[in-house]
Amino acid sequence: MSVSIFDSFLTTPDMIAVFDDGAIIQAMLQFEQALAQAQAQQGLLTPETARAIAGACKAQLYDIPAIVNAGRRAGSLAIPLIKELTSHVAQYDAEAATRVHWGSTSQDVIDTAMVLATRDALQLLDDGLHDLTGRLLLLAEQHTATPVLARTLMQPAQVSSFGFKLAGWLAPLVRGRTRLRASAARALQLQLGGAVGTLAVMGEQGPAVAALVADSLALQLADAAWHTQRDEWVRLGLEVAVLTGSMGKIATDLSLMAQGEIAELAEPSGQGRGGSSAMPHKRNPVAAMIALAAATRTPQRAATLLASMGQQHERGLGNWQAELAEWPALFLSAHGALQALNDAFSALQVDSGRMRRNIDALQGLVCAEAASAWLARVIGRPAAHTLLEQLSGQALSSGQHLAELLANAIHNDESLRRQLDPAALEPLFDPASAAAPASRLAQRQLSTLRADIAALNATPFYIRTPA
Amino acid sequence: MSVSIFDSFLTTPDMIAVFDDGAIIQAMLQFEQALAQAQAQQGLLTPETARAIAGACKAQLYDIPAIVNAGRRAGSLAIPLIKELTSHVAQYDAEAATRVHWGSTSQDVIDTAMVLATRDALQLLDDGLHDLTGRLLLLAEQHTATPVLARTLMQPAQVSSFGFKLAGWLAPLVRGRTRLRASAARALQLQLGGAVGTLAVMGEQGPAVAALVADSLALQLADAAWHTQRDEWVRLGLEVAVLTGSMGKIATDLSLMAQGEIAELAEPSGQGRGGSSAMPHKRNPVAAMIALAAATRTPQRAATLLASMGQQHERGLGNWQAELAEWPALFLSAHGALQALNDAFSALQVDSGRMRRNIDALQGLVCAEAASAWLARVIGRPAAHTLLEQLSGQALSSGQHLAELLANAIHNDESLRRQLDPAALEPLFDPASAAAPASRLAQRQLSTLRADIAALNATPFYIRTPA
Amino acid sequence: MSVSIFDSFLTTPDMIAVFDDGAIIQAMLQFEQALAQAQAQQGLLTPETARAIAGACKAQLYDIPAIVNAGRRAGSLAIPLIKELTSHVAQYDAEAATRVHWGSTSQDVIDTAMVLATRDALQLLDDGLHDLTGRLLLLAEQHTATPVLARTLMQPAQVSSFGFKLAGWLAPLVRGRTRLRASAARALQLQLGGAVGTLAVMGEQGPAVAALVADSLALQLADAAWHTQRDEWVRLGLEVAVLTGSMGKIATDLSLMAQGEIAELAEPSGQGRGGSSAMPHKRNPVAAMIALAAATRTPQRAATLLASMGQQHERGLGNWQAELAEWPALFLSAHGALQALNDAFSALQVDSGRMRRNIDALQGLVCAEAASAWLARVIGRPAAHTLLEQLSGQALSSGQHLAELLANAIHNDESLRRQLDPAALEPLFDPASAAAPASRLAQRQLSTLRADIAALNATPFYIRTPA
Amino acid sequence: MSVSIFDSFLTTPDMIAVFDDGAIIQAMLQFEQALAQAQAQQGLLTPETARAIAGACKAQLYDIPAIVNAGRRAGSLAIPLIKELTSHVAQYDAEAATRVHWGSTSQDVIDTAMVLATRDALQLLDDGLHDLTGRLLLLAEQHTATPVLARTLMQPAQVSSFGFKLAGWLAPLVRGRTRLRASAARALQLQLGGAVGTLAVMGEQGPAVAALVADSLALQLADAAWHTQRDEWVRLGLEVAVLTGSMGKIATDLSLMAQGEIAELAEPSGQGRGGSSAMPHKRNPVAAMIALAAATRTPQRAATLLASMGQQHERGLGNWQAELAEWPALFLSAHGALQALNDAFSALQVDSGRMRRNIDALQGLVCAEAASAWLARVIGRPAAHTLLEQLSGQALSSGQHLAELLANAIHNDESLRRQLDPAALEPLFDPASAAAPASRLAQRQLSTLRADIAALNATPFYIRTPA
Repeated sequence: MSVSIFDSFLTTPDMIAVFDDGAIIQAMLQFEQALAQAQAQQGLLTPETARAIAGACKAQLYDIPAIVNAGRRAGSLAIPLIKELTSHVAQYDAEAATRVHWGSTSQDVIDTAMVLATRDALQLLDDGLHDLTGRLLLLAEQHTATPVLARTLMQPAQVSSFGFKLAGWLAPLVRGRTRLRASAARALQLQLGGAVGTLAVMGEQGPAVAALVADSLALQLADAAWHTQRDEWVRLGLEVAVLTGSMGKIATDLSLMAQGEIAELAEPSGQGRGGSSAMPHKRNPVAAMIALAAATRTPQRAATLLASMGQQHERGLGNWQAELAEWPALFLSAHGALQALNDAFSALQVDSGRMRRNIDALQGLVCAEAASAWLARVIGRPAAHTLLEQLSGQALSSGQHLAELLANAIHNDESLRRQLDPAALEPLFDPASAAAPASRLAQRQLSTLRADIAALNATPFYIRTPA
Repeated sequence: MSVSIFDSFLTTPDMIAVFDDGAIIQAMLQFEQALAQAQAQQGLLTPETARAIAGACKAQLYDIPAIVNAGRRAGSLAIPLIKELTSHVAQYDAEAATRVHWGSTSQDVIDTAMVLATRDALQLLDDGLHDLTGRLLLLAEQHTATPVLARTLMQPAQVSSFGFKLAGWLAPLVRGRTRLRASAARALQLQLGGAVGTLAVMGEQGPAVAALVADSLALQLADAAWHTQRDEWVRLGLEVAVLTGSMGKIATDLSLMAQGEIAELAEPSGQGRGGSSAMPHKRNPVAAMIALAAATRTPQRAATLLASMGQQHERGLGNWQAELAEWPALFLSAHGALQALNDAFSALQVDSGRMRRNIDALQGLVCAEAASAWLARVIGRPAAHTLLEQLSGQALSSGQHLAELLANAIHNDESLRRQLDPAALEPLFDPASAAAPASRLAQRQLSTLRADIAALNATPFYIRTPA
Repeated sequence: MSVSIFDSFLTTPDMIAVFDDGAIIQAMLQFEQALAQAQAQQGLLTPETARAIAGACKAQLYDIPAIVNAGRRAGSLAIPLIKELTSHVAQYDAEAATRVHWGSTSQDVIDTAMVLATRDALQLLDDGLHDLTGRLLLLAEQHTATPVLARTLMQPAQVSSFGFKLAGWLAPLVRGRTRLRASAARALQLQLGGAVGTLAVMGEQGPAVAALVADSLALQLADAAWHTQRDEWVRLGLEVAVLTGSMGKIATDLSLMAQGEIAELAEPSGQGRGGSSAMPHKRNPVAAMIALAAATRTPQRAATLLASMGQQHERGLGNWQAELAEWPALFLSAHGALQALNDAFSALQVDSGRMRRNIDALQGLVCAEAASAWLARVIGRPAAHTLLEQLSGQALSSGQHLAELLANAIHNDESLRRQLDPAALEPLFDPASAAAPASRLAQRQLSTLRADIAALNATPFYIRTPA
Repeated sequence: MSVSIFDSFLTTPDMIAVFDDGAIIQAMLQFEQALAQAQAQQGLLTPETARAIAGACKAQLYDIPAIVNAGRRAGSLAIPLIKELTSHVAQYDAEAATRVHWGSTSQDVIDTAMVLATRDALQLLDDGLHDLTGRLLLLAEQHTATPVLARTLMQPAQVSSFGFKLAGWLAPLVRGRTRLRASAARALQLQLGGAVGTLAVMGEQGPAVAALVADSLALQLADAAWHTQRDEWVRLGLEVAVLTGSMGKIATDLSLMAQGEIAELAEPSGQGRGGSSAMPHKRNPVAAMIALAAATRTPQRAATLLASMGQQHERGLGNWQAELAEWPALFLSAHGALQALNDAFSALQVDSGRMRRNIDALQGLVCAEAASAWLARVIGRPAAHTLLEQLSGQALSSGQHLAELLANAIHNDESLRRQLDPAALEPLFDPASAAAPASRLAQRQLSTLRADIAALNATPFYIRTPA
């Protein structure tokens, strides 16, 4: 598979290779070989027949572009491939040639090939998540206590910690990796039903053959052919979409924090990455760009999978074909985004000084709620609230720091002066103190995430459930 | 909640009630009450304060349309509700009034209210699935051996059994019910994080308060506030979308089989259901219509949930609001479709005679593959294939039955006549025999499904995992 | 029509009223009245019959909730309404009662009612665009020369003018208004075809009746019933979606420029709008929030219209119903966004001082390209480029202003000093000069837009093309 | 551009060629050449410089895969291409090399290249529509009076004519072709704005250069750079989506009418097209399949264009890139669908005998409404309605023809016998008479469509509006 020129920036060569024409053709041949061998094991074919078929199941024997072209006319890739395979087999064994693809249907071989390719695609995503979750965990541990502005509705709100924010980015990726594995364990199923899903041609041995084929391809055995019951398959695609959404969230925040005027984060630069010779101050967040592009396109692709579910009777007309063609794009986008974020987080520049200065620039107003609570203990909540509101207004109009205004207010009011210790003001407005609650929560959450990541790293992403 | 006039046909009054304005407001008040009580348990408030707040947490005390209107100006429903709640409390206890909603944020109360409403919505879906899976199972058991045409690419293909087809419709509903429960067990989480998710106002007692609130509302306790990490929530919405897709598949097949020219199935009629006085022969498949409408709209709604995931920083601007507003529609459509299908299957008219006649009308051509296999044992596969191809062509042009043409061909060829028993021809072309493989598979699949359904019916749809 | 509680913040009472149950029922009755009158004009009914029917075509005579409920069972709103209308007429004139809805079909009356409501909806959008384009034009004229940072890939890029930016926001709204009118002139068509679109019942007089009905409702006369040919109707919906996209672009920029750290723009405040008592520094951009929510949801709704186009034969099953139910939401979101932006721009706070300071904070680097071009005239482009690159690096690492570094470089290099006039440096780095090209383009573009707006304001939004 | 293996069945080699990597690169170079030449005309460059640049603007000079790969790292295709172009020019003229791409920005060259490719893509669509509308017109003219069942809600309804149905398929294609041209005339605009859209580098000559470039590329001149104002461009994409929707409607009907049990239409067969050796009776509707796949995927792609509109400031981050990558797919699907339908309609098999038999199989019930109207003239509408309802019930239960039952009823009732002429019954139930109203409308509509098509065929699809 090759992709359009403007798609190529947004994915990876590794994922392109997974869904490449040659890879799909090879997976189709792998199915045909496994089918013949299983039929021989069940005595439906002679071992010689199976061997003759297996001998021709090598992608390099075929003119793939010619098969693709012929498929366009036939309305199916399987028809010309089976024809070519049959004539290859026929050169050596005419009888065996009549048994090629026997008992099977186009959708069996095509769906199974997509399942095999998808297993490889999921391995790439799992590997990428291994790396990205590792990087985020490390960074979060380093910045558990680093004060940073929390922002709501795109306005500075209160003080949080950068480690807390990072834990928020990390947790959905860990969940995403877990769920992708669970979904894979259900959806990576052999497709084998014959013309209308009943395995009729193979008589009573059909189910046993299916079990052997599933075994040899290390795929799950479905409860029935899923030619037009795509729910588990679609769920797997939706998991990829959710993961892409979670990466889009990270990219959104990253791009906002990397704005020149905020400058708390920067993607790594160098080797022309994201630079601009005409605008030397620019550091374009190209990783965020790729992840945002993925997050922009993927919801609609997920919708197409869902919209394709109403497949008619025993084989869909148009909707199966739509789903097939749409499927790889979900993985191409997801892996593009994942590796872009891996690039970004492999050398993310965190400016904790700037984070602090951005807090300071808000003149203590982000700590007004805490100050109000502190005051309330002495003068009651209503009076405290009123005073803080008034001082905040003053701070906004005068440009003075709220701490200073509050200190003055206390100093100028004898009753307050007597009851309140001005030394207590400092920690109230100290970003590090303000970040403490976030820091505590982050530590707790990170310890769970650390264990989850370790457990995931310790097991392979896919293990076939025994039939 | 009321819905637009053209939406009202497509959903149910029960589901409308779940997301009704009054129900949401009551759920919001339920959150505020639980919060105050938990804070009192943790010693952050006095018991009197908590009681004063709880006393005002009754929806009937409030002018809901006025709150909704005020919310429009404020940009949030929570702001006017909290204001009204506060002034209600203040009438009895001025100090308690300062503690209303304390330590919490608008999104905490709104998200939690949506979680509570969604739990009710899921109960309705689970109940509806209880009924529909029961009906489909019964029907499938009755029709395990009933021959019916299988159709691929919207063309008659081969013979299957109607029970096999029904099992194919049933299995995704059973899986859907199972997965909805699993997803609910993760997504029905308390939202409680305060202004920026750090529970800062409640100091070190924040997490303990959250645990108590979750407990009292019987919701899961999240690892962290999920204000802008919506992955589990979105997954739940996507499960509803997958379920709707599986119902759309049933409706597609139902509408195709109910066409006047095919007439294998008909929705129940009577009481004006789907009739037309001007066109007395019409029996409109209104249940299929409703399920198809749901399946047409839902993929895009799922996409909106995914598209809303990139929520900025600690509270999204526009995307959170979009997700909230979109959410109920997924459930409204799904329940409309589910209950429509329950109506249809409560008295579905199955015309097995017509199923048989539709098979017969194809002149035995749907059995050509089986006949070819039978012949092949004697004359080899290539010769068998060639003969059948020729006879099929004759059948199509002459209108004769393939069985008859084949019998003649055997009779006229001395070699064939000697080797083949014409009596064996009959079962080859007998729909009941042709349906046997499907019937066998259906029996096996139904026995698993029967057990799965029984297990689901034996447990409640939602059990809170202990913290 | 009422909407869900979380939808109500995102739209306007005016648009809710347009698609209200009562409004739709009244529009349906208006169709029935016009039909009877036209049939009387053509001699198909007596004038008395038409009068009897017209006399019952008043929404206040009917129990609308009961009709809606009955419609749910019937699968169509038209069936119970026609039944009620018929029995109303029958009270006075039994013969006339048999002519109610005569020659027409459910879809005729429902689609036409939606067309009538949509005309009102479009009037609201046109009015809102009248206001918003007026406001933006005024603002753009005031700020033609105001320097502001242009930003690309979410990084500060070069200097532009705020008026140029505003013209960029304005132009698509003017185009949107123009195109909506053009699309309305095609899509606001009478629907009248009878049971299968052939007007069969009315014999040869069908087309003449249709022309009269269209005339009396001031709707376009279609070339044929468009029961299942929805292209013009869908195009109109898509125009609303494009308009919403253009508003989303404005809201994106507005929300970015209103960030606390950038603070070039602020939405008007006061009367609780977007404020937060706990966080006094917050000025939440609630208008941008509403427009962004609309822009998040609308693309998917547009997709549903497109996905509904494959309507079967002469009346769709499920897809027509889906389109109907989805339709109002496009207008609800669009008008919500439009009026929110009207609120924002009615008193937008533009901080041109802060715009200037944000430019200054970039230490002249945004003018590096211009400085390089100036230098190139003397020392050639390659040498100029190299020098500027080096000085820019210095500026970034030292925090000095590029103008200062360049002045020093010139001063320290005898050859440069001789050839270059240091006085020329100042305008190079002066934001006002840097904004001049943008200002020139803005003036030109605004003069065209001013004329376009005046022309639009001078004509009504919809004029029926004579048949 | 190459496409994924499962996409290749669904599009055409011609459209793949339009968006091929080489074609895009060549279009980018065409832009650079035109820019240099225009700048020379305006005296900004010497003619020698422009010639040196033009000499290197040939795609065959470049290693396209290497540029694509480098672009992946740079995050933009333009950066490596400009670099390579510059070094090519530098081999001959160092000074000219400094003027490559001068005053322009990456988005200028990329967007303009997409506009140029899109113009070619639209030419292909216009040509395909020329053919398809011609074929449908011819067929409609042949079948103006051919009776066919009209079907509503997927149930047989009344009698129509096949020509009327064909006119219904044709009209949206004619409108689609017209609108695509109108949209192209607005959207095929030069993109040229420089770094932030202000044409700043070229000073006061910027607009004049833009006019010359637009002229030389025969593109429209925009009122301003449309880097982040994508409304006209998106509208063009949406027109393609509407066209695809209209083709999906045709494919829906075609696939329904081609069902084995209905068999009124069949796609042409032969050369392996849509056949199945195992199932000789199958004639798979592969053209409908391709058009349905396009109609399933395209709405979501349209949504992605709309969802990409909120492009930030002066160049979007992620959304521009998403739109670019998504764009070609709309055209690939549309052209695949269009040429598939052209294949189908080039030799569509229309079985008018079967159409008649399908009407007859409904025992006259589809004519009940007409019969009721005829009776009403004598016995009044209520009595007529009651009688027909009763006879229809009898027809349904007994299997008798309604005409026969009605004749008997008249014969057995003396009063009726006297008033009614039994000879008048025959035309009432004659499909040809029943089709007359449809036929009349079809003739009228076809005469308009014939003129519209002739007018479209007489003019080229795109003419540049003079600046």
